[in-house]
Amino acid sequence: MSEERKANEIFAEFKEHSIAEFFKKNRQMLGYAGVVRSLVTVVHEYITNSIDACEEAGILPDITIRVTQTGENKYSVYVRDNGPGIPKKFIGRALATILAGTKFHRYVQQRGQQGIGAAGCTLFAQTSTGKPVHAESATADGERYSCSVSIDTLRNKPVVTDFTDSSMAGTGLAVEAEFAQVKYENSDHGVYEYIKRTALANPHAQIAFTDPTGKEYTFMRAVDTVPEMPKPTKPHPMGVAVNDMLEFAHKSDSRKVSSFLIDTFARVTSGKVGELREATGEMLDKSPRGLTWADAEALVGAIKKAKWMAPDASVIRAIGAERIKLALKNILNPDFMHVVERKPQLFYGGVPFIVEAAVAYGGGAGRRVEDEYEGNVLRFANRVPLLFDSGSCAITVAARSVQWKRYGIDLDSQAVSVFVNVSSVYIPYSGVGKEAIAQEDEIVEEIKLALMDAARGVQHYIRGRQQMGAETSKYKTISRYAKQLSKDVSTLTGADQRDVEKRREELIAKHYPTASGKDGRGDGGDADGDGDGAEGGDADEEGEQEGQ
Amino acid sequence: MSEERKANEIFAEFKEHSIAEFFKKNRQMLGYAGVVRSLVTVVHEYITNSIDACEEAGILPDITIRVTQTGENKYSVYVRDNGPGIPKKFIGRALATILAGTKFHRYVQQRGQQGIGAAGCTLFAQTSTGKPVHAESATADGERYSCSVSIDTLRNKPVVTDFTDSSMAGTGLAVEAEFAQVKYENSDHGVYEYIKRTALANPHAQIAFTDPTGKEYTFMRAVDTVPEMPKPTKPHPMGVAVNDMLEFAHKSDSRKVSSFLIDTFARVTSGKVGELREATGEMLDKSPRGLTWADAEALVGAIKKAKWMAPDASVIRAIGAERIKLALKNILNPDFMHVVERKPQLFYGGVPFIVEAAVAYGGGAGRRVEDEYEGNVLRFANRVPLLFDSGSCAITVAARSVQWKRYGIDLDSQAVSVFVNVSSVYIPYSGVGKEAIAQEDEIVEEIKLALMDAARGVQHYIRGRQQMGAETSKYKTISRYAKQLSKDVSTLTGADQRDVEKRREELIAKHYPTASGKDGRGDGGDADGDGDGAEGGDADEEGEQEGQ
Repeated sequence: MSEERKANEIFAEFKEHSIAEFFKKNRQMLGYAGVVRSLVTVVHEYITNSIDACEEAGILPDITIRVTQTGENKYSVYVRDNGPGIPKKFIGRALATILAGTKFHRYVQQRGQQGIGAAGCTLFAQTSTGKPVHAESATADGERYSCSVSIDTLRNKPVVTDFTDSSMAGTGLAVEAEFAQVKYENSDHGVYEYIKRTALANPHAQIAFTDPTGKEYTFMRAVDTVPEMPKPTKPHPMGVAVNDMLEFAHKSDSRKVSSFLIDTFARVTSGKVGELREATGEMLDKSPRGLTWADAEALVGAIKKAKWMAPDASVIRAIGAERIKLALKNILNPDFMHVVERKPQLFYGGVPFIVEAAVAYGGGAGRRVEDEYEGNVLRFANRVPLLFDSGSCAITVAARSVQWKRYGIDLDSQAVSVFVNVSSVYIPYSGVGKEAIAQEDEIVEEIKLALMDAARGVQHYIRGRQQMGAETSKYKTISRYAKQLSKDVSTLTGADQRDVEKRREELIAKHYPTASGKDGRGDGGDADGDGDGAEGGDADEEGEQEGQ
Repeated sequence: MSEERKANEIFAEFKEHSIAEFFKKNRQMLGYAGVVRSLVTVVHEYITNSIDACEEAGILPDITIRVTQTGENKYSVYVRDNGPGIPKKFIGRALATILAGTKFHRYVQQRGQQGIGAAGCTLFAQTSTGKPVHAESATADGERYSCSVSIDTLRNKPVVTDFTDSSMAGTGLAVEAEFAQVKYENSDHGVYEYIKRTALANPHAQIAFTDPTGKEYTFMRAVDTVPEMPKPTKPHPMGVAVNDMLEFAHKSDSRKVSSFLIDTFARVTSGKVGELREATGEMLDKSPRGLTWADAEALVGAIKKAKWMAPDASVIRAIGAERIKLALKNILNPDFMHVVERKPQLFYGGVPFIVEAAVAYGGGAGRRVEDEYEGNVLRFANRVPLLFDSGSCAITVAARSVQWKRYGIDLDSQAVSVFVNVSSVYIPYSGVGKEAIAQEDEIVEEIKLALMDAARGVQHYIRGRQQMGAETSKYKTISRYAKQLSKDVSTLTGADQRDVEKRREELIAKHYPTASGKDGRGDGGDADGDGDGAEGGDADEEGEQEGQ
């Protein structure tokens, strides 16, 4: 048996640690796990920050990305945007303090929401190559500078050195950093795919990308307007937990709980306060600073029992069905698609979210594996592509629960892309690395409904294609036999072979009008064989919105 | 288009946040997602801390757990241990500061390693019910007190109130806290199952549990010795990244890099330093405080090319095959099992880990679903049961990759439990909630090999059972027909029916000696039909260790 140790001996080693030390030791929790994924995580963090910054400033994003190989499993990543830039005095904290930023405390929909991303990149750069991040920025106020940034991990504080002037044109931020233990790979989980999907969900952004071989790609913008910046919103009362209620109340300047409720939350009117009064009584006349846990609990209980208008959809900015259509056309150019934008729903009782879904068929949709096609699911949260941890994501779980074959769709063998974007003021990510949406029942259910809508929208088209395919194949088989038959009939009967052939052709054409081209249309795979009068093959006409 | 906003307007909102605020907002990342899982997370954190504290103090753990329902989806959790207790001046920081503790900075194998667990429970208690955690403790120095503990989340600092004297007997810590948005459930993902599995992987711990209905369970200890506390160890040079090397060097008191290497790392001898000198030259005579990134990179490069003795297995404390056998017998009492303890392996180039695996068959193994059985996989990391996120865990991935049917095992329909425990100084968890082991190739591969070993160990037994089952079934069918047949033969030929029956029995027995009981053994399902001479059914004899 080991020797006994006393508490005071053990606690002599007690220490507190900074969050930077924590993530330095556990970088896989930030998405820095595996050489390919780690590089995607870097690109993801920088692009996310750039697009958020542009949108926040009302600027159409123009982003340049360059990934250069500098050694074995070593790459340099350069990202430049035309956003508002970062004031000199904030550059250190913005790029090298974990849990610092403008977004964390806001109740507003943005891509980043944690204040970890860019600082995580700095941490990864310095722990993998020992090098600081080089930053260059210019703001509309005329600040123009470049500098080197790293993190003092023991204290989670920025170290900024080498400030020099810069001649950067326009406004914006450029970062360049070198990373080891990373690898560029052309795969479904690689940087190129990540950027392509970013372009898909952000048709207003223009992205130029140079890969390590020097090849240049430009994803042109498909839409010329900046999505309106979602306004910070008052929380909906149904989404407020007891501790939040108490915290809001104690910080409130309102004179009474009743006015505090109206001032603080969306959808609370004096009429509604009247309703709540029946359940909660005099408490509403107290000062909100004096609210107790029991008061807050009673208040939240009364709120849950009342009927409320749904949250204002305008607090969430979905991509929009039209923009998704343009983006899918621009990037995947499918033969056919159906896009669905659903109405806002709630999870956690009161946090609003919107699901958009699309099924795209043919063209550049799906994945080509050697000579075969298979379907793929493109997951997005607030327009940010999710490439990893698919198994544990609400989108994957919902997609698996749809009986695709009922709609004529086979994700195992068809060129189909299933697109899902979940937009919310708060995305419940399952991990710090933000690669999967937690499987909240309401979210899974709503995604499933959206996917079923989208699948219904393409089923006639796909069924038509399949019927077409089956008919063509039968037609060809029968024609093969019939050719030999007409020869034999001609030999046996002495009749003119061309006559026999012509009559046999007419006979077959009567039974297979479409496949034989005898319905006045070509054999080009058009989908009008399903009898519903739909014009298959025209993505714009058929891809109408539902659920609006 | 939105109005343009300048950088200085945007950055006026810039703030820094505490890690406590972060996890308050993102508690699902700590495992507080879903009512059932949240309750398990609480129990898990407290038990883990208790067992670690006991082991660290060299005490045989004796733990009492009580879960009481206090309202709808509201429960109180009480956990008391006989550990060393917590000195009064540390109680606040131990229970209510995130990222504080004795474990984070040590290079030693323990269950907890993050300094988040207990403080996470405090955070969850206060945000879900508004109530502090009640703590009571006594140390060997005679400190005896109780108090209330909560977190000032804005600053991540403890708030300790209501200190009073206590008459607690012995040493130890008792915590009691109330949680809302939780639910007790008797399922594979519930508290009872968690505790049962904890007992399975910790046969030296005694655990008494009272469930919300008042039912009491006691998991008696199967082993009477405290596992020796793993000693903090020197890191193995193969596991050291460039930034770690640099950090170690800059903190070193050694005069030269050469002596620094010998002092700091395991397995570095002066002979080895001689080898390194050929690759790195004079750098080894520098002061370690003057080491540059380039130096450290060259040094790490030279280390990777040299041959090293594997890390000392003694730095890792696996459970041990004998203890696993006793625990499985004690808790599952299977008909048969095979336990494998493998040799230490490395991941990340130099972090040692040990995999233990077992396959248990029959008895209380597997899961009973109505009248059918199915297999289950019991996952453990440093003896801590992992109940959630199984899909993304290295253990699940490895278990799926084994072709069980080749060993006669069918996890879909047999009463089989597959047990895997991964022990390491550093477990690469995929998330802060520590519910899954990251899928590092070396770990997945090693688990697979361990499972194949374990499966081989039971295959003769299982094959025997199956053959036995098949033979018995054939014997019974033939006997059924034969009975009628002997009657008919007797009627037709006039021969004595008993004579015919006897001869027919002898005939059948000749073909099915075991099933008919004519080999001098019973029909009791013994597995000696496989011809390898193994005595099936005796777990102790057959379950020999491999790989030691």
